[in-house]
Amino acid sequence: MTRVRMAVIALGAYLIGALSGTVTQGQGDKWYPSRWGAADQRGAANRLTPAKVLDARSMITAGKVYQLGRTYEAGMPLYGTRHYSLKVPYAFAMPGKNQANYHDDIISGELTQIGTQFDGLGHLGIGELFYNGNRKSDFATPDGLKKLGIENVGAIVTRGVLIDVAKYKGVPRLQSPYAISVADLTGALQREKVEIHPGDVVLIHTGWGSLWMKDNATFNANSPGIGVPAGEWLASKEVVVVGSDNWGVEAFPNPDPNLTAPVHQLLLAKNGIYLHENLATEELARDGVYEFAYIFAPLKFKGATGSPGNPIAIR
Amino acid sequence: MTRVRMAVIALGAYLIGALSGTVTQGQGDKWYPSRWGAADQRGAANRLTPAKVLDARSMITAGKVYQLGRTYEAGMPLYGTRHYSLKVPYAFAMPGKNQANYHDDIISGELTQIGTQFDGLGHLGIGELFYNGNRKSDFATPDGLKKLGIENVGAIVTRGVLIDVAKYKGVPRLQSPYAISVADLTGALQREKVEIHPGDVVLIHTGWGSLWMKDNATFNANSPGIGVPAGEWLASKEVVVVGSDNWGVEAFPNPDPNLTAPVHQLLLAKNGIYLHENLATEELARDGVYEFAYIFAPLKFKGATGSPGNPIAIR
Amino acid sequence: MTRVRMAVIALGAYLIGALSGTVTQGQGDKWYPSRWGAADQRGAANRLTPAKVLDARSMITAGKVYQLGRTYEAGMPLYGTRHYSLKVPYAFAMPGKNQANYHDDIISGELTQIGTQFDGLGHLGIGELFYNGNRKSDFATPDGLKKLGIENVGAIVTRGVLIDVAKYKGVPRLQSPYAISVADLTGALQREKVEIHPGDVVLIHTGWGSLWMKDNATFNANSPGIGVPAGEWLASKEVVVVGSDNWGVEAFPNPDPNLTAPVHQLLLAKNGIYLHENLATEELARDGVYEFAYIFAPLKFKGATGSPGNPIAIR
Amino acid sequence: MTRVRMAVIALGAYLIGALSGTVTQGQGDKWYPSRWGAADQRGAANRLTPAKVLDARSMITAGKVYQLGRTYEAGMPLYGTRHYSLKVPYAFAMPGKNQANYHDDIISGELTQIGTQFDGLGHLGIGELFYNGNRKSDFATPDGLKKLGIENVGAIVTRGVLIDVAKYKGVPRLQSPYAISVADLTGALQREKVEIHPGDVVLIHTGWGSLWMKDNATFNANSPGIGVPAGEWLASKEVVVVGSDNWGVEAFPNPDPNLTAPVHQLLLAKNGIYLHENLATEELARDGVYEFAYIFAPLKFKGATGSPGNPIAIR
Repeated sequence: MTRVRMAVIALGAYLIGALSGTVTQGQGDKWYPSRWGAADQRGAANRLTPAKVLDARSMITAGKVYQLGRTYEAGMPLYGTRHYSLKVPYAFAMPGKNQANYHDDIISGELTQIGTQFDGLGHLGIGELFYNGNRKSDFATPDGLKKLGIENVGAIVTRGVLIDVAKYKGVPRLQSPYAISVADLTGALQREKVEIHPGDVVLIHTGWGSLWMKDNATFNANSPGIGVPAGEWLASKEVVVVGSDNWGVEAFPNPDPNLTAPVHQLLLAKNGIYLHENLATEELARDGVYEFAYIFAPLKFKGATGSPGNPIAIR
Repeated sequence: MTRVRMAVIALGAYLIGALSGTVTQGQGDKWYPSRWGAADQRGAANRLTPAKVLDARSMITAGKVYQLGRTYEAGMPLYGTRHYSLKVPYAFAMPGKNQANYHDDIISGELTQIGTQFDGLGHLGIGELFYNGNRKSDFATPDGLKKLGIENVGAIVTRGVLIDVAKYKGVPRLQSPYAISVADLTGALQREKVEIHPGDVVLIHTGWGSLWMKDNATFNANSPGIGVPAGEWLASKEVVVVGSDNWGVEAFPNPDPNLTAPVHQLLLAKNGIYLHENLATEELARDGVYEFAYIFAPLKFKGATGSPGNPIAIR
Repeated sequence: MTRVRMAVIALGAYLIGALSGTVTQGQGDKWYPSRWGAADQRGAANRLTPAKVLDARSMITAGKVYQLGRTYEAGMPLYGTRHYSLKVPYAFAMPGKNQANYHDDIISGELTQIGTQFDGLGHLGIGELFYNGNRKSDFATPDGLKKLGIENVGAIVTRGVLIDVAKYKGVPRLQSPYAISVADLTGALQREKVEIHPGDVVLIHTGWGSLWMKDNATFNANSPGIGVPAGEWLASKEVVVVGSDNWGVEAFPNPDPNLTAPVHQLLLAKNGIYLHENLATEELARDGVYEFAYIFAPLKFKGATGSPGNPIAIR
Repeated sequence: MTRVRMAVIALGAYLIGALSGTVTQGQGDKWYPSRWGAADQRGAANRLTPAKVLDARSMITAGKVYQLGRTYEAGMPLYGTRHYSLKVPYAFAMPGKNQANYHDDIISGELTQIGTQFDGLGHLGIGELFYNGNRKSDFATPDGLKKLGIENVGAIVTRGVLIDVAKYKGVPRLQSPYAISVADLTGALQREKVEIHPGDVVLIHTGWGSLWMKDNATFNANSPGIGVPAGEWLASKEVVVVGSDNWGVEAFPNPDPNLTAPVHQLLLAKNGIYLHENLATEELARDGVYEFAYIFAPLKFKGATGSPGNPIAIR
């Protein structure tokens, strides 16, 4: 091949990159195809095995169930221009002497991205590229995602670990925007005498959730959460989901003013690890429950970017 | 008291009854207040205890998880005038050099009463009266139910039992509208060598779900399901939820042409027992799994009549 | 008939009244059937005739068109729990070498009762009773109104009159909650040298609309508007629509603390006269245009309580 | 410049073109900036003047109004995956002795692109390019269009002309997919003794609307409508809107199997001329009304691609 030909190809490649938005600071490393193959759509959900289910089973000793899902209701904090509406239509009268009548609910909103929400792999990307190098223009359609839809995840039944960073730092609520460090995570785990295993779900208690429906303006303005190194450390632990009691799991804004949501990119796009946001972790924290069975089955909205729901922890 | 006065009072009472819709055939028995007190809003969910959670735990031996929720998607069967719409808006571009962008989903519909759905105690009543004698006009508002909302139920983690009536009758799919009898239930349970315990969830496999997305017109037209005596027998077993792979759990139309949805009334209103509809029971049936941990936490849509979701069975 | 029998019937009638909510203070007069017959569903729209269209035509002299509809947008004032959402889904790609692609809008909300809105006769009633004595339970269904739906109104092309009460009172904006009197209306009309004719549409400029999107909290909190006597006077003038630049046409709260929205009841229910709310009347007022062709054709949402839209005035 | 450099640039340009989708067959001609300047967002609406309003006024002789909007209702034909839902929530009870209570409607759907619909300039483009060369990525956002939104159009009050092509061809309904030719238009106009003037709105009666709610499957499958030459002829006549009683104004499929919706591209993108679809033209046709005042003011949904509505014709 001549040098001219190579130069042409190089320029073409550069132009493709520039146009498609993959020239991203710090994204030079090769992060796809995924470790589960180029066709994989489930990411870290592949770490879920019968053994992890039995792991979760072994956490259940007291038979106590914690609901981690917040109530969806008017007045809850909402990100950006998202909305939530529930109305009850007039009762429908059924025929028959037994006078059955029923009512439904009409709900509208960005249902997969409000309140307690589980981010799927099609939710957020790096420029045009999403998990496993899937290009947005190849799978995003107005009628739902053709790939990476939330229906691919499956039920998550595994061991869960709560890292109470607020407790470790000796405050009821971390300041915002504090970026939780690796040392914070390891220190808190040491205090809790708990370790993370591959295939676990890790929930981080920041105390930020105490503002929910109490001071929505502060809650929404920004948020403490994990920083990029903490995210990388969690990814290295081969977890399945990282959740928290804030709206974005990670610190907003990021300490680096040039970056927005880099932990989302790191976990979702590069590592196929899911995010679970706006979790009600306060009761686990109050009771000092640091190990438990975490159970959540995303609603199978075909082609959706995420799922609402009411995940549970059992001990 | 004079006879005239008594006659006046009797007429008044009759008029009240006629106007308020409580004069219902066969509903003369006193079914409220509930056994859990006049203020109770949770019904049979009160049967859920740590002991039942440990009961569920003991069902988990293989670590295999079954998703019982169907996919919510365009083209699924819908009852009446209900609808479901999911659209993906244009991606939102975030500021920053790291080029994060994300998309949401806009969903609208009778989300609590389409596809796999869990009926709450505020969904269906007897004339004006719902569970625990709550009068519709006292708790139904355009902005949600003031009582009996689905957020009161809590997480359900208990032993589940599958009654494969289709298998017992030797057919892949019961004919419609076949009303499953008590003998069908007891016969099938005997074949399965399984018993129902108080606090269990009972799922009934009719095979009707095999029509889902295959022949929606037939699926929707009517349905095999339990009859009133079978419903009464299940209520006597003190279960928490009765679920099935059809759209209404019970037989539609009812064998008595004067009745519509009497099993809904019996279970929801009179006994506080929940219904779980359009469950994907076929894999449990195929694998002959008749006992399992049933886990479902209704989404906490405040004031809603029910919940969508992806319940699971674990063995 | 014996006295006893009569007493029984009287008591029964009382009970019916008490239960059905027709015993309303000051509503003792007989206001139905309507002057257009017991079956009529169009109310004052019956006053629209070809002669009124030609009347409107004669108002058009300069060929100048005023849009009276406000922009529907995020951040506009909304009453109660109503909402408005518009999202643009990803573009749909069409097949073909010509690369056509298009986008839609997904809209949800109480579309007939937000922003510039036209109240139909099925919107508001007196207890159970609506226009022409229609009982709510007889025509309101979850899937739309079986009677009095907005699709019955038809196009309104008639003479319009603007009564600039703010100008007459010498203020840019009436104080709230000022109840506009008959003297205010007649005084302002005298200043304008304009008379109201049967079949006209009357718009009232209060200046309250200047708060739109500027100070939504004040705009929504309450409102100046016509009082009951002014409403009665307008009804006596046999108009078709009464509109204004506020969210409810009438004064909120009413000077009588025992009454809420009595002018709605008076105009809609008793007189079949429509209301047009949140009109952009400021340009007409600025230009001193007090007579014009008013043109509005409600969107034919079958069974709806009202209509959004962009009514126009032409001079 | 060396040949190598030129080759590199050529390759780069090709890659840019291929990626951005502007390499379109037959679109080589320069169609932007628009004749109304590079910043214009209103297109042919610029042809609307006071003189055209007076032109419309002169059409009004009998005072007869025709509603051209179809009823929005369950069961109407819908294109693609669009939906429409209207539900009536429970009545809201207001405080006060006068027992006011009201109900709203909850509506969801692709409201600007269902039923009778008016296509704005942001609805459909040529690859990435829309009216006036606006690039989709520059103005389409998830929260609405930043340019070309329907709120820019303004009220349309002008002379309208009905071309009854079905009558001219001697059939109640054109066959599908018949592409109406220039000769059809000129022949029909000659029969009607009517001419098109600049600034007019032209409506084309095909009879296809007679299938509305009668045979939705046939109605939706394809459609007679104008072909590209007829579209070009209409554009040369400097009209403002082209409307019809079918779902897409133009012939679907196009006679050229390589093209989809080329008339949309021609009128909307290249000429800034609006489309009005699913009009109820049958009464005008029945009465032989070929000239009239056409009046339509798009709803000002900020950033929307189109508008629903109930346009009217007056003679």
